[in-house]
This record gives sequence, C-alpha cells and structure tokens, in this order.
Amino acid sequence: MRRLSHKLKARGQRLGFVPTMGALHEGHLSLIRQAAREADRVVVSIFVNPLQFGPQEDLAHYPRDLARDLERLAGEPVDAAYLPGAEVLYPDGFAARVTVAGLEAVLEGAQRPGHFAGVCTVVLKLLHAVAPDTLWLGQKDAQQCVVLERLVRDLDLPVKVRRGATVRESDGLAMSSRNAYLSAEERAQAPVLHQALARLAAAARAGERDAAALRQLAVRHIAGAPLARLESLDIVDARTLAPLERVAGEVLALVACRFGGARLIDNVQFRILRREGER
Amino acid sequence: MRRLSHKLKARGQRLGFVPTMGALHEGHLSLIRQAAREADRVVVSIFVNPLQFGPQEDLAHYPRDLARDLERLAGEPVDAAYLPGAEVLYPDGFAARVTVAGLEAVLEGAQRPGHFAGVCTVVLKLLHAVAPDTLWLGQKDAQQCVVLERLVRDLDLPVKVRRGATVRESDGLAMSSRNAYLSAEERAQAPVLHQALARLAAAARAGERDAAALRQLAVRHIAGAPLARLESLDIVDARTLAPLERVAGEVLALVACRFGGARLIDNVQFRILRREGER
Repeated sequence: MRRLSHKLKARGQRLGFVPTMGALHEGHLSLIRQAAREADRVVVSIFVNPLQFGPQEDLAHYPRDLARDLERLAGEPVDAAYLPGAEVLYPDGFAARVTVAGLEAVLEGAQRPGHFAGVCTVVLKLLHAVAPDTLWLGQKDAQQCVVLERLVRDLDLPVKVRRGATVRESDGLAMSSRNAYLSAEERAQAPVLHQALARLAAAARAGERDAAALRQLAVRHIAGAPLARLESLDIVDARTLAPLERVAGEVLALVACRFGGARLIDNVQFRILRREGER
Repeated sequence: MRRLSHKLKARGQRLGFVPTMGALHEGHLSLIRQAAREADRVVVSIFVNPLQFGPQEDLAHYPRDLARDLERLAGEPVDAAYLPGAEVLYPDGFAARVTVAGLEAVLEGAQRPGHFAGVCTVVLKLLHAVAPDTLWLGQKDAQQCVVLERLVRDLDLPVKVRRGATVRESDGLAMSSRNAYLSAEERAQAPVLHQALARLAAAARAGERDAAALRQLAVRHIAGAPLARLESLDIVDARTLAPLERVAGEVLALVACRFGGARLIDNVQFRILRREGER
C-alpha cells in the first residue's frame, strides 16, 4: 500500500481515502463518490478492526462479505482496495495505543470503553500506510469525526479531513451495516431515531433553547416505539462534545438505542445563532 | 520543517534525525556524527517537551541555553535545527496521547507516570514533521529506545531506528544534561553507577547467572558512595523489559539514582549465550 501511494504521489496525484469495515452500503459509496470528485485517485480500506470492539460486542458476528464488497467497489470510482489482515496490522506483541484524552471517554466512549483508542490507533496506522491527501469520514459516526479531526490536528498529520453527510433509507433510518441485524418488526420501528432527532432540531430552531426540554421531546418520541431500548440521548457542543444546558452555536444531538440485538446510533447537527442579549 | 523535508526528499536525499531537549553534550554530538555518516542531510530538533515531565519533576529548571546549543551545532554536520515552540506543538485543547501499553508502565515508567506517553506523543509529532529516513536515539535512555522502536514498528512509521552507544566522561560517568545539577562532591561519586553496572556485566560474563546475586553486587558497590540514593536497579530482558531471574540472551541492567537534586540513569546491555542444557 505504501509503495503504491508513494508512486501515485510522486506523479503528483492527489489521494482520497475512505476507511471502512466492509459491509458496504450507500453511505460508504456516497463517501467514495465525494472523494473521487476531489481527488485523482481513491483508496478504500476494508478492515474489521478488532481493537475497537469491546469483549461483549459484536466482533464475531459483524457482517463480513468481502466478495460482495469488492463487487460493489468495482462499480465505483475506486482505484485501490487496501485489505490488510489483522496479523499484519497487529503482529505479536503489538502494544501501541493512540487516543484523544477527554473526547474518547464521553458519549459513545463512556458506553464503549477503549472503542475510540481502537479507532484512533487503526486509523493512524491506515493513514501511515495510505498517506492520503484527504480522509473521508461519515457524519453518521459524529463523535468519531470529532475524535479523528482532533487526532489529525494534534499529531500534525498531513491530511485534510472531510465529512460526508449521513445517507438514509427512504423512511429516514440512517444507513448502517448493523441494520442487517434488525428483524422486520424492529426495522419498521427503527426510523423513530431519526424522527426524534429531527423533531428535536426543529424545536430548537423554532425557539426552544432548554436542552432538557429538547431531550425530553426526543426521548418521548422514541418511547412510542415498543421495541426501542434507548441507551443514551445527548445534546452537546459539536466541537468539544461538552454537554449543553441551553443550545447555542454548533449543536450536536446524538442517540444510541437498541432494537433487539442491534445497537444503532444516529445524530443531528445544527447551528443555533445566539440572539442579541442571550447568554 | 515539513516543507523543507519534502523538498530534500524530492531530490532523493536521505534524512537523518536526532531529536534532543537541548543542553547538547558529546552524547548528542556523537549521534549527529553517526547520523551524518549514513544520511545526506541531518536534522536536529531542540524541544524541552513539557508532556514528558511529571508535576514534581525538573521541567522549570531543566538546563536551557539555545544560543550555546546552536553554536555547538554550527560546528557539526547539521543541515537544519528544528526549534518548535510548545504553543505550536501543543495548541489549546491539545488532547492526543500515544503510548506503548505495558512497556511504558515498567521501570522508568513506573517511577515517572506519563513520562513515556509524553515521549511517544512528541516523537510521533516530530516524526510527522521531519519525516526522516532514520531516527537516532541514545542507548543511555535504553527504555526510551525500546519504547520508541516498538512505537515505530507498531504504527508502521516509515523510519529506521538506530541507537548510538552511550558517551562517557573519562571516569565512566554517562554524559547527561542533568550532570549539570551535580555538586563537585556528587560529581566525584557519580561514576559508581557505571562502575557498578560494569561489575554486574563482568560477573555475568564470568558465569554468575542469578539476577538477584548480580543485582546485589551492583547495589553494594553503589552503597559505597555516601551521596548516592539508589532508586532502582533492574535486570531485564532487553527486548521485552520483562524482569529476569536468571540472565540469558540479550540482557539489560538499568539503574536510577539520585545525587542531591539530580536524578541520574545509566544502563549496560550485554548478551549471555545459553549454555548446552541450561534453561
């Protein structure tokens, strides 16, 4: 991978990079197409990273179908698929850990200890191998975007980070490889997450500034779906991930919710302009 | 720095890199000369890294004399001095942390919590900026060598790590910026550290395989210096840093000892071939 990257860059070609864990869906393809519009070459990696799964999580069952993934990539503007093995990325005695203190311990990180250290570590390794000009991330994993943007800045990595908007099914459910875990009944109820977040954002835009009230509005909507087991719903500053009492500035509302064996996440990000005299 | 590095490498020149905290002495200059023999260009960084000092440590008093350092460099085969400011390397909100799990928590790391995470973090940043072909480290900081070699391997950094032998005063005291803290009397006694390690290695080569006995030999020698306050003396596997009960293979003996306000470290590394039938 490094040799290929060097060769392309020596020719002056700009590289866009989309890291994935496979089980590719329209969300990934959307990132790939955006990357292709801005770069001369696009590299996609497929690696189900054991380091970012907790011991009780779904590593063993995470959907894997490399043949189907490569088939999908063949129809897209992709120049190289980087498919490292775990034994290559994590040889015996592997011990390096990379993280972003603070940002990695809140929200998703509080519920999934070690998750973001696993993400940071593998993405840094992938960036060292691919050496892209631009790294493309999906807004669906909003905290991951914040963490990795900070990592790239803090470690002076010579790469630009771009976010692609969340791609949704026609009923609003965010595309996710984990949607494959949903039963038909769960699948029918899962759009409540996006609906609840959309209502929250609309109420904020309409003037409600109290985060607890906004949160309650969304929680109540999700409670209307009998199969939804809400894990968390947070309203935070989109850059620092600090909890907000009153919404203002760049706001991020994130939800994590179980439907049966599937743990789904979604988020909405919006800007609330501070009014004259408002704190 | 990155622009300069790119320019030199685009011309096919190989870069050697010697990171330092300034207060340059013959040990640093020896690394620089070795780097120059193997590379086309040599970059030296000078940065007293706050991240690797504990709150009770000597960051504020660490010897700094940039003018004198640059004067010394002017007489050496150095092509560029990289002098980043702390506000550049660690801007507001800086939160990335890089470490090598396990290796960073033993020996020096046990006595200096967070020290090696600070070292790993800054060296990774320096490597991203300088992008050298070879990184030169001093054997005097043996654990630092092991930790950084592992970091480079684990993170797939495209750089070769080389160690330079410890440079010593004529009486055996290892060159160190912290020797400047020693009173005349302390300075006169400080060579016991090297003497003790040399005796330990000689006894091992002469057939003593019991690590406790070897350790006792060295501890007793250091106890002969009334101003020495021994902090630790460890005999470990040179690659894994695991403590040894019997010495065999590549062995590293490390000492940390206070003389007045100065905390000095030294080490000796030697190979003991396993004899037929020996475990």
